[in-house]
Amino acid sequence: MAVYTHLSADDLSSLIAHYDVGELVSAKGIAEGVSNSNWLIETTGSDAARKNGGGARYILTMYEFRIEMRDLPFFLGLLDLLADKGCPVPRTIHDRDGASWRKIGDKAVALIEFLPGVSIDRPQPEQARSVGKALAEIHLAAADYDSRRNEMGLASWQELTDQCGPEGLAQIDPALPAIVKDALAYLTANWPAGLPQGVCHADLFPDNVLMLGDRVSGLIDFYFACTDFFAYDLAVTHAAWCFADHGRTFRPEISTALMAGYESVRPLSEAERAALPILARGAAMRFIATRAYDWLNTPADALVTRKDPMDFARRLQFYAEQGAKAFAGV
Amino acid sequence: MAVYTHLSADDLSSLIAHYDVGELVSAKGIAEGVSNSNWLIETTGSDAARKNGGGARYILTMYEFRIEMRDLPFFLGLLDLLADKGCPVPRTIHDRDGASWRKIGDKAVALIEFLPGVSIDRPQPEQARSVGKALAEIHLAAADYDSRRNEMGLASWQELTDQCGPEGLAQIDPALPAIVKDALAYLTANWPAGLPQGVCHADLFPDNVLMLGDRVSGLIDFYFACTDFFAYDLAVTHAAWCFADHGRTFRPEISTALMAGYESVRPLSEAERAALPILARGAAMRFIATRAYDWLNTPADALVTRKDPMDFARRLQFYAEQGAKAFAGV
Repeated sequence: MAVYTHLSADDLSSLIAHYDVGELVSAKGIAEGVSNSNWLIETTGSDAARKNGGGARYILTMYEFRIEMRDLPFFLGLLDLLADKGCPVPRTIHDRDGASWRKIGDKAVALIEFLPGVSIDRPQPEQARSVGKALAEIHLAAADYDSRRNEMGLASWQELTDQCGPEGLAQIDPALPAIVKDALAYLTANWPAGLPQGVCHADLFPDNVLMLGDRVSGLIDFYFACTDFFAYDLAVTHAAWCFADHGRTFRPEISTALMAGYESVRPLSEAERAALPILARGAAMRFIATRAYDWLNTPADALVTRKDPMDFARRLQFYAEQGAKAFAGV
Repeated sequence: MAVYTHLSADDLSSLIAHYDVGELVSAKGIAEGVSNSNWLIETTGSDAARKNGGGARYILTMYEFRIEMRDLPFFLGLLDLLADKGCPVPRTIHDRDGASWRKIGDKAVALIEFLPGVSIDRPQPEQARSVGKALAEIHLAAADYDSRRNEMGLASWQELTDQCGPEGLAQIDPALPAIVKDALAYLTANWPAGLPQGVCHADLFPDNVLMLGDRVSGLIDFYFACTDFFAYDLAVTHAAWCFADHGRTFRPEISTALMAGYESVRPLSEAERAALPILARGAAMRFIATRAYDWLNTPADALVTRKDPMDFARRLQFYAEQGAKAFAGV
């Protein structure tokens, strides 16, 4: 959660000059993003906006780690498609040559629409219902997105935890090596096939949702978006929203509202519903894997706070114990 | 340069409700401030602003370290006075009870007007001229400010470097203990008295000045403001603006413009002009002292980047060698 790169006012003005957004008025590095640096930029606005007396705000994102430039067209094109379909996602601002991203030095940057709203720490049911609806809406809206990627599937969970090794996992928690081994064996043997799939956000945590009251004003940070089962994306969102106290407390009223919101737009098939428990165990495993890897590979002086993999080991256990009851409604 | 404290959307909304600024629309932690956490806040605006269709932006500052609550009235009252006099400083927003600051938990927070502009890394002469003018303007505008404080004078430089000790200073650079000892002896023996004094910003580095082109749109971060010689404040600003390459390169054209800008508003007396070389050596010593202390006392995993005291040891040497020539103009 930091700004990793210093951009001078001259750097920013030079960049902005490539876009029809007017002149630079303000730029503040913002404390968001783990793999990116982000600035909240204000300009005098496009020629059109300026005639109406309006300025404009944007998020400037610099891709620092993890994201491959070859994936940027997938992410940024997806934002444009979803915005065109009326989903509350930030539009990519294209430069005067039509490009959705540029480079500063050897790093890629994109200028993205600023959306209002704040992230909610402890959601209320009406907010979870809105999030469920918004998730289903992007699933439907992106149905004909013809670009594909998925690098965060089961194979990657195995690979990341292999790289940690049993000793590394045991450093985090003595129980973790066995939890991971059993979970991966179960998931590999039982992972479903043939479910409806398409573009998934795959990381829809509360801090990636902007809200105004009960309304979703923005879905952001699509940098884990991928092609996968829709129901897996719902399971990820369920794991991300329906627990408190670091995975210790399940919030059934949030689960019920999230599921109802989703199904009000895109009802689940019987096969999807039956698969939810294992998909949720997979979702928990996915965050155990990346958090464990980051836990062991984040330098002590890094600018980010490490997240505890055990928060998701608790969820994994909950989903294994509860099965379909976790999604049954209150 | 980080946000040290997490404030939830609920925390922020509860706070905002105490002010006539409308409802929370957006909040982004910004990567500014070493002793503070800061958020760029957008609201629906005051009742008056909302009637005109306008929202409003503010900086929310939480005072984390270093600043004593007893000093807040000095800083925040100063902002109000200077804004009233037309200086480009952010106004403090008072709550419905008229208070200029509130508490969240045990920490003080203030809501401050947002000002446009960007900080300049490498100033041009016209920009330095504007900064000189703006500095002189705050000196004149605050002439009748009846509140006083100064905790960053010669005695504190001695104290901070004593706390570092010769061994600590030598860890930073083998030459530093002798540089500090000689400088403090010289300054103590020769520090001037009786110069015109009043409210000084005392930390007017480029990152505390917002500019739109050549115009100063904001002077910010008054948390080292104090009662001292005006010419000392000019010397601090000179040391902060007129060097490049970490103090290795003097930029005479910036010096000339800064001095001319200042004197276009408030001409220096002969005594002030004669004192500038020693005041500048004092200014350099002040930043050597705080940077050395922070260098030795900042944990390796802190969220701030340590600043090299030697950047100001070079300036100290320059001012000692050049004397009045450093301010003579090109």
